[in-house]
Amino acid sequence: MKIKVAQFGLGPIGLETLKLAATKPWAEIVGGIDIDPAKIGQDLGDLTGEKALRRRLVYGSLEELVACAKPDIIFHTAVSRFRDAFGQIEPMARLGISVVSSCEELLYPRLREPGLAAKLDAICKRSGSRVVGTGVNPGFVMDVLPVCLTGVSREVRAVHVQRVVNASTRRAPLQRKIGSGWPPARFRRLFKEGRAGHAGLKESLALIAHCLGWKATDIVETGKPVVADHDIRTRHLEVKKGQTCGLHQRAEAKVGGKVRLTLDLKMYLDAPNPHDAVQIEGEPPLDVIINGGVAGDQATVAALVNAARNLLRAPAGVILMTDLPVPRIG
Amino acid sequence: MKIKVAQFGLGPIGLETLKLAATKPWAEIVGGIDIDPAKIGQDLGDLTGEKALRRRLVYGSLEELVACAKPDIIFHTAVSRFRDAFGQIEPMARLGISVVSSCEELLYPRLREPGLAAKLDAICKRSGSRVVGTGVNPGFVMDVLPVCLTGVSREVRAVHVQRVVNASTRRAPLQRKIGSGWPPARFRRLFKEGRAGHAGLKESLALIAHCLGWKATDIVETGKPVVADHDIRTRHLEVKKGQTCGLHQRAEAKVGGKVRLTLDLKMYLDAPNPHDAVQIEGEPPLDVIINGGVAGDQATVAALVNAARNLLRAPAGVILMTDLPVPRIG
Repeated sequence: MKIKVAQFGLGPIGLETLKLAATKPWAEIVGGIDIDPAKIGQDLGDLTGEKALRRRLVYGSLEELVACAKPDIIFHTAVSRFRDAFGQIEPMARLGISVVSSCEELLYPRLREPGLAAKLDAICKRSGSRVVGTGVNPGFVMDVLPVCLTGVSREVRAVHVQRVVNASTRRAPLQRKIGSGWPPARFRRLFKEGRAGHAGLKESLALIAHCLGWKATDIVETGKPVVADHDIRTRHLEVKKGQTCGLHQRAEAKVGGKVRLTLDLKMYLDAPNPHDAVQIEGEPPLDVIINGGVAGDQATVAALVNAARNLLRAPAGVILMTDLPVPRIG
Repeated sequence: MKIKVAQFGLGPIGLETLKLAATKPWAEIVGGIDIDPAKIGQDLGDLTGEKALRRRLVYGSLEELVACAKPDIIFHTAVSRFRDAFGQIEPMARLGISVVSSCEELLYPRLREPGLAAKLDAICKRSGSRVVGTGVNPGFVMDVLPVCLTGVSREVRAVHVQRVVNASTRRAPLQRKIGSGWPPARFRRLFKEGRAGHAGLKESLALIAHCLGWKATDIVETGKPVVADHDIRTRHLEVKKGQTCGLHQRAEAKVGGKVRLTLDLKMYLDAPNPHDAVQIEGEPPLDVIINGGVAGDQATVAALVNAARNLLRAPAGVILMTDLPVPRIG
């Protein structure tokens, strides 16, 4: 019995998720959902260029998809805010359909929306569905991986993660999302208004604290533009010297009055020496480097698809990645 | 309701496990078990130097312990071979007591003893107990961690792990176990007879293959002595130039006719640049270094104690570490 899979959101990440899922022997793709009128009614085979997806269609709504074929699981790649995702995911959960979402705030939804998180959890429990948020960041490098490392810790005094991403190698929407080409003042203003920046840092921090049984206080997030010191041209866009070419974002929290959790993310065009690093201060101390880092878009798509089978074995509810068995390709 | 904990095996690792468990707010230590007549009847407070363990005794058998207080979980640190562990763990499982064991072959017991593994699994399922084997190696660096890393992989073509351990910093039994002071010919002979060397490499390899859905064939393990190039004196022993000062052990396996899994372990006195390294060949490629490595004995003890609460939430049976939620301190 194959797992019936649908895709909600057919942007670059959604299309790649669909293509990867289509290669899995356990998956039967039943269709896609998007609100873009230009995509509705199209053949997924044409949209993705994958023969295996021919005669699977893009529907304009969940209802229309379900009228043709009800999926067991939906990959949801559409929005960053849980508040926005809720209205899209809630009807899926009501129908007993499980959801793996790239929605950053869904990594730890009760941080910002405890009421909505509890509501969705109750719906899942009634219908037997499961919802999880995952990805690379949030979803792995700055949360699941450090938590996993503490599995060999006698004592943890602090957790620090740094991530340097060379955005020049990433997809167009990401290059734009980090503010490329903006005057630095615009980045600062939009970041302050919560309309620019990378989503999910606070959620990563909250997930670590949750897993370690820590009460995090004084959670602070800061973000500033990285300003280009030379003209930059990528496959997708151009940035002049003096314009924003990415971001430097940081979240930290105190535990017991001391700063014990720090997450530091630099994501900008032409960033040298991309890497991920985790330090667990404690017994034993752990000093981990991922040379080159976990390459973004490929890995994000993989994280979503790889979570599916672990999720379908989990009890009903809004699930945390750290509640699932050790992640793996599958 | 605290979790009632007992310790089977009161060597250095067992005593440290007990001491760490005693610091956990969820644990109530009810006693220890050892076959050493010199230890039976002793007070764990005296044996460990921990006041909190006073008036908990060492019993000569499981029956005597259970007659006084039945534990929910036993930390079992006694033997490397599952065949030897079976007779010790089976009566615990029959009584519905769960077991976290440092027995290396229990990481993946069906590799060498599929019959015994199935038998123990059936006993656990009847009684509602759970048994898991864990530690740092096997249990984390060469198996759980690489599996976890593939959670962000679209494709995995090969997994390679290297571990360099400076045995000079380790406990006396480990320094002796790696052959310190032996003539190299003796190490070679005993390794060939299966009476020397580090246990668990093949189990790590089999666990990775299992998690990746790979059929591993041509599993080969080799081991040779590392010969001291200078006189070495540790806290525990002395080795002359020309004698064995440790081991270089390697396991590899083919998948689909190609070598795709390699585990390489160097553990010797005064080893320079201790570290752990994992390479996932695939999409994306991952290149991970743990500078200094995961420091052995402390981390082994932590891995055992940290697994307890995750295990008690798992379904009954012989459980793999990769079936449990993401490891964490707890």
